[in-house]
Amino acid sequence: MLSFDEIQHRVSQWMGKKRFKHTLGVVESATQLAKLYNVDVEKARLAALLHDCAKEMPLKEMQDLVKDLVKENNYKADEELLANGNLLHGLAGMIRAKLEFSITDSEILEAIRVHTTGKVGMSTLDKVIFLADYIEPNRHFPGVDELRKVAKENLDRAVLLGFDNTINHLIEQHLSIYPLTILGRNDVLKSCK
Amino acid sequence: MLSFDEIQHRVSQWMGKKRFKHTLGVVESATQLAKLYNVDVEKARLAALLHDCAKEMPLKEMQDLVKDLVKENNYKADEELLANGNLLHGLAGMIRAKLEFSITDSEILEAIRVHTTGKVGMSTLDKVIFLADYIEPNRHFPGVDELRKVAKENLDRAVLLGFDNTINHLIEQHLSIYPLTILGRNDVLKSCK
Repeated sequence: MLSFDEIQHRVSQWMGKKRFKHTLGVVESATQLAKLYNVDVEKARLAALLHDCAKEMPLKEMQDLVKDLVKENNYKADEELLANGNLLHGLAGMIRAKLEFSITDSEILEAIRVHTTGKVGMSTLDKVIFLADYIEPNRHFPGVDELRKVAKENLDRAVLLGFDNTINHLIEQHLSIYPLTILGRNDVLKSCK
Repeated sequence: MLSFDEIQHRVSQWMGKKRFKHTLGVVESATQLAKLYNVDVEKARLAALLHDCAKEMPLKEMQDLVKDLVKENNYKADEELLANGNLLHGLAGMIRAKLEFSITDSEILEAIRVHTTGKVGMSTLDKVIFLADYIEPNRHFPGVDELRKVAKENLDRAVLLGFDNTINHLIEQHLSIYPLTILGRNDVLKSCK
């Protein structure tokens, strides 16, 4: 297997400067969150490094990657997921991480897969990557400082806030809301009560 | 079949004064919307009169009503719907309207059933009742005047705004979001584009 630095070098070639900077920010935040919430730091760093590794692939390439592997691996890829790169890049990234770097750790792969959509029954690692993606130091949006604060206090509450920010954003932008994201959001809401 | 006035009298006995006043407001708004969007006014009035006819039943009674009939009629009643009177009173109201008043018109029954949750593929009558429930004259919430204005201009945009208001409210109140409502919301969003 390649070293972290070797993978980082390859990943840097798959994305623009801005996204690579974001990726390093997610590695940084994921490392902090992993320490705080007792998650394996090496797994968190690798999942963070790879979370957006397919984000800049053309949609057609993502779809081809996913279609080839979706059946034999039993991953879900509904019509809405397949049609939208913003949703699909998690699953595509997971497959790319498997194919290109022979990553087999199911916890790392799953955290990459669900980092945007969420799901019912997220692991702590899933939540760490989901949240690091929101709060990494290069993110600037209304409420990000509050989210960073909550992230240090209560992981589930911060993840819920992340989901709710996303839903509000989709409503404001008159965009479709992915139903499985709602299921993930309702599930973490239960954990908060 | 009983007359509108006779049904109205019975319905008034099933709810407190405030809800009955709301019900008459929904009849009024549904009448206006029905005229505006070429929906059968009598159907709209009857659906509006009956939309909340089960709202003040104890949850257990709603559940019994629904469980008896849900199988033979092939209506969907998932676990989340069955557990929450705010969601279930539409389906329960539909069944009550059938049982107590022998209403058989499927368009009226369906508009009662989906008036809170929405669904994919709402009819114009469904939308009129859904919206009248929001904008009737006794409703007071931030944005209701804007919603009333949009309701006169574009039914789908107003229904979308109604859905989005509901979702925002659920988020603010830290409540679960019903996934089928999201499907209904995304469906009407498509019609707006």
